[in-house]
Amino acid sequence: MRLLRVGAAGSERPAAYDAQGVLRDLSSVTKDIDGAFLESGGVARAMRALGDGGLPAIAEPGRIGAPVARPWACICVGHNYRAHIAETGAKVPVQPVLFLKASNCVIGPTDTVRIPRGSVKTDYEIELTAVIGKRAHYLADEQAAAGVVAGYCIGNDVSERQWQSENSGGQFMKGKSAPTFAPLGPWLVTADEVPDPQVLSLKSWVNGDLRQSASTADMLFGVFHIVWFISQHLALEPGDVVMTGTPAGVALGRADGRFLRDGDVVEMEIERLGRQRTVLAQA
Amino acid sequence: MRLLRVGAAGSERPAAYDAQGVLRDLSSVTKDIDGAFLESGGVARAMRALGDGGLPAIAEPGRIGAPVARPWACICVGHNYRAHIAETGAKVPVQPVLFLKASNCVIGPTDTVRIPRGSVKTDYEIELTAVIGKRAHYLADEQAAAGVVAGYCIGNDVSERQWQSENSGGQFMKGKSAPTFAPLGPWLVTADEVPDPQVLSLKSWVNGDLRQSASTADMLFGVFHIVWFISQHLALEPGDVVMTGTPAGVALGRADGRFLRDGDVVEMEIERLGRQRTVLAQA
Repeated sequence: MRLLRVGAAGSERPAAYDAQGVLRDLSSVTKDIDGAFLESGGVARAMRALGDGGLPAIAEPGRIGAPVARPWACICVGHNYRAHIAETGAKVPVQPVLFLKASNCVIGPTDTVRIPRGSVKTDYEIELTAVIGKRAHYLADEQAAAGVVAGYCIGNDVSERQWQSENSGGQFMKGKSAPTFAPLGPWLVTADEVPDPQVLSLKSWVNGDLRQSASTADMLFGVFHIVWFISQHLALEPGDVVMTGTPAGVALGRADGRFLRDGDVVEMEIERLGRQRTVLAQA
Repeated sequence: MRLLRVGAAGSERPAAYDAQGVLRDLSSVTKDIDGAFLESGGVARAMRALGDGGLPAIAEPGRIGAPVARPWACICVGHNYRAHIAETGAKVPVQPVLFLKASNCVIGPTDTVRIPRGSVKTDYEIELTAVIGKRAHYLADEQAAAGVVAGYCIGNDVSERQWQSENSGGQFMKGKSAPTFAPLGPWLVTADEVPDPQVLSLKSWVNGDLRQSASTADMLFGVFHIVWFISQHLALEPGDVVMTGTPAGVALGRADGRFLRDGDVVEMEIERLGRQRTVLAQA
């Protein structure tokens, strides 16, 4: 099932596509696509309601929001694809490298990404993003980790490279957390439709020029290992998102030193998860 | 005014001390001490209600919770006191070093701190903690920053040093975010009662042994500079907490290599902000 949230920012309503590809309003099933919905068996309820028919069609969805309500935590993995590690000059890590983005940078898949004031190195990062459906602390193994993943979406881990790496004491957070720095979506695709998250192609374009093209098979640490690993160190909660790292091809790795500018168009596609398109503008 | 939250975890009610030192129930003024309360002029309403009299006294407060409801973000500053920088072997930073703790590690000032499974280097860090009262993005200057600080409390930035620094890719977050790793309180002391946050003594003890003793005058970057600086890079929200770094004397800096153990008692005191006492236990 492809879940989404449509409407003005802050007042999105829940929706899903039925078997005929018609967008249906899920407002009678849940108030929102959020942690409480995912934790309480909401996916099964929504599937039943879709199957039963009778949910109103949404003819004009208008804006599409992030496919999950604001999460408590956006947990990110750095340096998780070898070719990207090479382009950044980092060492190959022996464990997943974890950091947080401020969760108030989550936006929808067609919203405007704002280049922060003073930024000269705003960059894009396509990432397979897992959405957590159950509280997870001290998971026993990767199989248990698979059981807490509600589904997947596209995530763009927008990054300001100077803020991330220069005068940062090595801490990435400051360069990862500007408002609008986490476009998610268009859809939350439920885990049943992604039987193997490690075989998905992912691609990004800037102004139509292909920049990143890889497969999640290239990840150093797979999604379930990452979720298991995080749960050994902190507690994941329903609705949290886990961004699993980006492959090579970001602006940081380019010889031309050309970072994102006002008016640039960033498009991203992951197999089974749809496509997002954001336009850059100066904050 | 000293604001606090009393009652069982997850169902605390708001309270404050009146001029006679009697604890009064603020439930008729606000549902909680949270971002919405702070942003909407709640502090002034609570002061008026206390002055008017008639708020019921709380004879038996029972447990004290964190003095502010779960924040969206716990933003921390690393390496902000020279003697602490020296004991960790880090470089003196040219800008505040920022990282996030997962906000689900916030607990009350007498709650049990859990040593995570597999931890061998759990450590304490007393920190002057500012609570944000208004959304803050692109603040003009430090004076504007002072205007968004609702008040202050004691914070313990509990840290697992191995997780923070070994195999972490340099990212602190993993060692800072285990459940219970952020005891806050006992009180949120409103900013009017802390006219200068850079002249406060702060002390911590482990099992009665004085470990940290310093003054916020020793901070490299002061509270208002930090809040201004954060606002240039991300958006602070009402109810967010900013932990401003710890002085020397943490276990990491000790020759004996003795980190916290099951049963240890950590006490912390900051001038004007009261005292907290937490006991360690194995998770």
